[in-house]
Amino acid sequence: MVKTLQVQSSKQTEFIDITRQVTEIVLKTGIKEGLCILYVPHTTAGITINENADPSVPRDIQMEINKIVPFEDRYLHTEGNSAAHIKSSLMGTSLTLFIESGRLLLGTWQGIFFCEFDGPRSRQVHVKVIEDRR
Amino acid sequence: MVKTLQVQSSKQTEFIDITRQVTEIVLKTGIKEGLCILYVPHTTAGITINENADPSVPRDIQMEINKIVPFEDRYLHTEGNSAAHIKSSLMGTSLTLFIESGRLLLGTWQGIFFCEFDGPRSRQVHVKVIEDRR
Amino acid sequence: MVKTLQVQSSKQTEFIDITRQVTEIVLKTGIKEGLCILYVPHTTAGITINENADPSVPRDIQMEINKIVPFEDRYLHTEGNSAAHIKSSLMGTSLTLFIESGRLLLGTWQGIFFCEFDGPRSRQVHVKVIEDRR
Repeated sequence: MVKTLQVQSSKQTEFIDITRQVTEIVLKTGIKEGLCILYVPHTTAGITINENADPSVPRDIQMEINKIVPFEDRYLHTEGNSAAHIKSSLMGTSLTLFIESGRLLLGTWQGIFFCEFDGPRSRQVHVKVIEDRR
Repeated sequence: MVKTLQVQSSKQTEFIDITRQVTEIVLKTGIKEGLCILYVPHTTAGITINENADPSVPRDIQMEINKIVPFEDRYLHTEGNSAAHIKSSLMGTSLTLFIESGRLLLGTWQGIFFCEFDGPRSRQVHVKVIEDRR
Repeated sequence: MVKTLQVQSSKQTEFIDITRQVTEIVLKTGIKEGLCILYVPHTTAGITINENADPSVPRDIQMEINKIVPFEDRYLHTEGNSAAHIKSSLMGTSLTLFIESGRLLLGTWQGIFFCEFDGPRSRQVHVKVIEDRR
């Protein structure tokens, strides 16, 4: 019961809004109460929830995380993408959301972003929906 | 089966210990084995687990995260709270805890903190308890 | 139904690969489809997923997080391990993984690391496996 979203990034650092795709998967399951868990099977990408109304919010997050974790910093890993690995661990690769009355329970301003830190690449997000039968 | 805690912050940055409220919700469900998932429906707040015995621990976390993500840094978002959005993504907006023998399984020193990054505001934390029937 | 892994760290900062131990717990349950949730009951340690093929990746993550959160920074907490508490909150103390066809669903390069930030110490990781019976 795992569905997989395909995500194509076009830049080195890019936040891609996947709220609509996740919402559709949840609706199609017909589950009324439960959990929706998202999982990124990559080590140079992440996933986060933040405001998706003003596009400057994800841009500021990307700008600041690229400052906090510089692209070059005498890293030992020779592939040149250590910064992306570090950002992946800071942002996280998994999210748990609630399903209530058949819908994803998101706050008014919340959207779900796939976080590319080492693009452009073809990526995946696994989505699992669990029913709460109580 | 989602319960919602109301949290009122009184400062711009504030960690509010909600361990007792979450513990009570778990006890009232009567569930012996399962999961307790917490979800913050805001984009300028977060949730974390850390030591709640010495109040200087949450204070140090707040002090340092405010250094790592400065309040002003030529952000594009014009509402003046970009730093809070960034801290929300770094800290995370969801937590998964275990229920064992009818109680929340926390480490000796662990408490649950709602993390206000753009207060003072009236906030919510959604709590979902899932039974493990195996 | 919570299994507990014992982890012994030997340095102040150390990432310990626990992928094999978690994989074995999942296999022994015989569960085909479900969730595997990991929980660290400590306030100066964390857990993360990242590349475990090249050992320089976890070393770069440790190096950089020790730069982002310096060991000394006029912290208020008098036990001398405030940096470890802060790193614990940034990295997180819980992870949710998928079980598919009886196996842990990890990306090609992904491994699970226990993150010691205040070692050496004897530590624990709680593991809970939930079956998805849909």
